[in-house]
Amino acid sequence: MRVEIWSDVACPWCYIGKARFEQGLEAFAHKDDVEVVFRSFELDPSLPKGTVSDVIPMLAKKYGMSLEQAHQAEARVAANAHDTGLDYILGAHDVGNTFDMHRLIHFAAEQGRQKELVGILFANHFADERSLFDDTRLLELAVEAGLDKDEAAAVLADETRYADAVRADEREAAMLGATGVPFFVLDRKFGVSGGQPAEVFTQALEEAWAARTPALKVVGEAPEGAVCGPDGCEIP
Amino acid sequence: MRVEIWSDVACPWCYIGKARFEQGLEAFAHKDDVEVVFRSFELDPSLPKGTVSDVIPMLAKKYGMSLEQAHQAEARVAANAHDTGLDYILGAHDVGNTFDMHRLIHFAAEQGRQKELVGILFANHFADERSLFDDTRLLELAVEAGLDKDEAAAVLADETRYADAVRADEREAAMLGATGVPFFVLDRKFGVSGGQPAEVFTQALEEAWAARTPALKVVGEAPEGAVCGPDGCEIP
Repeated sequence: MRVEIWSDVACPWCYIGKARFEQGLEAFAHKDDVEVVFRSFELDPSLPKGTVSDVIPMLAKKYGMSLEQAHQAEARVAANAHDTGLDYILGAHDVGNTFDMHRLIHFAAEQGRQKELVGILFANHFADERSLFDDTRLLELAVEAGLDKDEAAAVLADETRYADAVRADEREAAMLGATGVPFFVLDRKFGVSGGQPAEVFTQALEEAWAARTPALKVVGEAPEGAVCGPDGCEIP
Repeated sequence: MRVEIWSDVACPWCYIGKARFEQGLEAFAHKDDVEVVFRSFELDPSLPKGTVSDVIPMLAKKYGMSLEQAHQAEARVAANAHDTGLDYILGAHDVGNTFDMHRLIHFAAEQGRQKELVGILFANHFADERSLFDDTRLLELAVEAGLDKDEAAAVLADETRYADAVRADEREAAMLGATGVPFFVLDRKFGVSGGQPAEVFTQALEEAWAARTPALKVVGEAPEGAVCGPDGCEIP
């Protein structure tokens, strides 16, 4: 079974939702048969690269709140993170363009290190005061995730690499009806939107599991002898 | 879009079918949006490791044919391979237990080298007289596919590694109704069985593409504020 998770490192509910999904998965009887793939979704693709703001002033400005109100809003997110068992330093993260992180996550997938990199990026964004909007820092974390430093640096330096893969994920999210993240898709048949409680993820996994023997629509007809089976290949 | 291909290196129609699928994919307008994953299916899991037979005597014995008839059957497979543009040395390959190759293919997937390894194994099994049922040779080919030699050797040496992944693929094949290989599954909605002509694969890709915006069944309801969207995260 396959679960695709559209998310953005900049999204606190993605950080929380990913942890709740993992808790829900842990309680699922067939967890060893579940493959998890991370997909790209930029919360704000219009942010120019290099423009970084602290989260609380950004929230205040964006929603016309006082700094105190923005701080309270952040505190509610932090409380949800803490309740989920996650580290979260209130107000410590910044906000910027995440396209390069998404490209790097696609490179990591190709190297079999996607899960590691996504986990490290989320944890560092929300529970470490150092900014991720910095190629040197990003590269350190890529190495921590098991990626080759030179290869990861080459990916970061060339904006065209994995750019199509990021865009393709975003087009797919739109086609699947996602308008926000986190967005979880199970076997392309069931969807869960948002950082739901762990039990909802377990339930979704169980529903998808029960529905997982689809009747495939057969295309074409095998010419005689074009298949090999347990008793050997047909002799045409 | 995602295509899963259940196959076995020991299966000549898998070698031919893979090439025809690739030709069909080449003619498909959205080929860049297609992800291909190889899945395990052992033609004969009962063969003990270390027992290897030449193909023509094996065919003769299995089907109660003369060696001449077995040679003719092999010749028909070879002719199909040649017509598909593939190298194929008539009667040169041997037959044995492929479990270790499947485990190695799963390791390669984790390293982002699955496509390379599968292509190299098929080409060498059917168009090179050296046997693949030999850890030294298998390791050479793993390195040729871009895998680390020591890591690949460690996988081959430990029969438990990726064994569950191979078994899980085989259970899924059974659940999807596959009794022989190659077996192609598009987005878990369309199936193609056998080494069909390239046009059948193009047609299947087109049908799957047209059907690729599924209505997801929504599980759970997002609590207010558990989603981040293009305008930022909801403030609960």
